[in-house]
Amino acid sequence: VAGLLTAWAIVVAAGDGARLGADRPKAFVALGDRVLLAHSVELLDDHPAIDGIVLVVPAGWEEPASLLADDLAAGKVAAAVAGGATRANSVAAGLAEVPDTADLILVHDAARPFASAELVSAVLTALGDADGAVPGVPVTDTIKRVQGGRVAETPDRSQLVAVQTPQAFVAPALRRAYAQPADVVAAATDCASLVETAGGAVAVVPGEAANIKITTAADLENARERAGARG
Amino acid sequence: VAGLLTAWAIVVAAGDGARLGADRPKAFVALGDRVLLAHSVELLDDHPAIDGIVLVVPAGWEEPASLLADDLAAGKVAAAVAGGATRANSVAAGLAEVPDTADLILVHDAARPFASAELVSAVLTALGDADGAVPGVPVTDTIKRVQGGRVAETPDRSQLVAVQTPQAFVAPALRRAYAQPADVVAAATDCASLVETAGGAVAVVPGEAANIKITTAADLENARERAGARG
Repeated sequence: VAGLLTAWAIVVAAGDGARLGADRPKAFVALGDRVLLAHSVELLDDHPAIDGIVLVVPAGWEEPASLLADDLAAGKVAAAVAGGATRANSVAAGLAEVPDTADLILVHDAARPFASAELVSAVLTALGDADGAVPGVPVTDTIKRVQGGRVAETPDRSQLVAVQTPQAFVAPALRRAYAQPADVVAAATDCASLVETAGGAVAVVPGEAANIKITTAADLENARERAGARG
Repeated sequence: VAGLLTAWAIVVAAGDGARLGADRPKAFVALGDRVLLAHSVELLDDHPAIDGIVLVVPAGWEEPASLLADDLAAGKVAAAVAGGATRANSVAAGLAEVPDTADLILVHDAARPFASAELVSAVLTALGDADGAVPGVPVTDTIKRVQGGRVAETPDRSQLVAVQTPQAFVAPALRRAYAQPADVVAAATDCASLVETAGGAVAVVPGEAANIKITTAADLENARERAGARG
């Protein structure tokens, strides 16, 4: 569906990187020959289905983010804005910068620098018959729901997926999702769950094992080895 | 509770290591200066609350497992038996070797070589007011339940844990759990879920970030770096 429609991307890069133990926001730590954020900017700027990009960064880092985009000659980057208190608040800040002409909106975490162009295509394509689409990978650990220190439920692992970004949405569905009450929005751990609570249908496409999320210093070290191995 | 009661441990080491890409069963790949299985045998043999140990290994590897126990002077190892088609079948094979005098039974995956003695103590101690106890760590990914390629539910991530081993049980509760119909037993991804379906109460204690499960070649490489760093 993406070819004929206008698609914008929001890159969420507003984390402070506290769990990373770095001296700067996570998006600006080095990974290979570039900073973390640059990997996602290049991925989306190079993707033929993406028409415009909004970067969401920590307050005070809008200017470095814009300079980075210039440096990468990433002409699709239209804005770099400050994020909010939670991930969802940061997405909302990015969403406010996406023009009304966008038919599709993709949201990607800069903390996942190894997402492929194929995965971007896959979530956009899945919007042909859904309001949203997310990549999911099988869960390897047994997951339990806990209440009061006791196991309340062990959901059937074969039905569970761990979801990644990029996540793609039909624009009105995403805007409706973020128009829900502020406390509902602030607590969401991914965009898709807000679309779901707003009544939207979300498809799951196969995620990528390589599409890891960088949270801890150990994650970053692994990612650096991988980036180095790529040349 | 463990001090006055008899506690046996079952070490589940029957995986073929197919996802590891090794030329031998996972339990017998090298990790640091020992094989993977040796880490769990030493942990449990050295633990004052553990009175006996049963090893469950791939068919044909019972003898190497017994020799390994001799080599480690792990005098609590009472048997090494062949596992079954699934993890739960392997636990059942081990359970058949645990004497009726055992009051508490601990089940541990050899694929988790970095579990601490404190964690063994913690799950045993938690049996003071539960039928079972498992270590759980917070889930960092958003988890969704999928049906027919669509998201059916996004459970509140703050209520979810990813569970680890060692898991500890009051012996009658574990035996009742494994006395359930064969198809129920075979499908279980952890012992606790069978105890839950048999009506038992399972406590969750804090797990350990270092207590990783070795599944893939990348996991093994990370573990080898960690084992090397320990000296």
